[in-house]
Amino acid sequence: MTASSVRRVSIVLFDGFELLDVFGPLELLSIEPERIEVELVGPRAGSVASSQGAEVVAPIAYAEAGAPDIVLVPGGAGTRRLVHDAAFLDWLRSWSLDAALVTSVCTGSAVLAAAGLLEGRRATSNKLAFAWASGHGGDVDWAPSARWVEDGDRWTSSGVAAGMDMTAALMDRILGDGAGTRAAAVAELELHLDADRDPFARSSGLIS
Amino acid sequence: MTASSVRRVSIVLFDGFELLDVFGPLELLSIEPERIEVELVGPRAGSVASSQGAEVVAPIAYAEAGAPDIVLVPGGAGTRRLVHDAAFLDWLRSWSLDAALVTSVCTGSAVLAAAGLLEGRRATSNKLAFAWASGHGGDVDWAPSARWVEDGDRWTSSGVAAGMDMTAALMDRILGDGAGTRAAAVAELELHLDADRDPFARSSGLIS
Repeated sequence: MTASSVRRVSIVLFDGFELLDVFGPLELLSIEPERIEVELVGPRAGSVASSQGAEVVAPIAYAEAGAPDIVLVPGGAGTRRLVHDAAFLDWLRSWSLDAALVTSVCTGSAVLAAAGLLEGRRATSNKLAFAWASGHGGDVDWAPSARWVEDGDRWTSSGVAAGMDMTAALMDRILGDGAGTRAAAVAELELHLDADRDPFARSSGLIS
Repeated sequence: MTASSVRRVSIVLFDGFELLDVFGPLELLSIEPERIEVELVGPRAGSVASSQGAEVVAPIAYAEAGAPDIVLVPGGAGTRRLVHDAAFLDWLRSWSLDAALVTSVCTGSAVLAAAGLLEGRRATSNKLAFAWASGHGGDVDWAPSARWVEDGDRWTSSGVAAGMDMTAALMDRILGDGAGTRAAAVAELELHLDADRDPFARSSGLIS
């Protein structure tokens, strides 16, 4: 394997990001360190406070981050502010424009939509916050019932834990040899393999 | 609710802890901030590097940590060193002795066993590392097939993702009103509700 075939996932931290939206996917991605690098980028190099209070170190500031290969935007309480932060949204849009894949977990899809990165696409989001999230973007086809949605180079997942299912499917896709399914087995995680099966759409009243 | 009824979970970080062992449980516990406090303790106050490289801030050093209510020890590559670290094991044993509950995720049970905290108890651990983990402790009844094991005031889970199932069951127990099951639904996590159902015991060859 040549160095150039290593994929890089850049996870965008912000004040009030949701812990499991980041560390569920990161746990799975890190099981393939020879083929996937993960970097955490934040508003500044240093610690960033999660929704839950725990602080995580982002070694790279947004302004210093190189052109991304795969972008992952988590959800969390901080997204309520981010969707109105024009400077952040401008940075995210221009930084992500040439990425191979732009992905989100949970209410991270509201941020992608607010940045104009989901125009003309199908997407999903957290089911308890769906009414709020789906109010963002101009021409986004919001799916009220989906564990995750893949639409070309945009992948969006439902709430929190759904990000792990999407990540495993994405690893299977980009590495091509069942790597995501294997990573989940190492983490003793029973995956949801069907993107269209969404038990939380019903429990949240989005479908009857 | 009086302040004294708030439960406190102290999660023990160490160099080489496994991210999801910590942040899966923390995600669920944090959904009940009025009734459960979570604190991260580390070798020193400051950042601690996970198995995966990402660094997390532990605001409290071991030496400064108050008497714990509920202890949670995660697994990770760093446990291979910790089980030989006499000073750490001495601290963990004496600090945990009067805790209401002592719990672990994944290979964290090897650390509890090495500290003498599982003597005379039934326990489990990560299934791919089971042969190694179960070599620790003197008189521990290691269960090769269990999603998690509850034995009085000692709770131990199988690998990584199993820690979330154990945590939800523990929240249901200590809060008494289905709080863990509800937290999992908020996080869109489909729980394993049966402690004795362990699909990874078979796939790891521990049972036929």
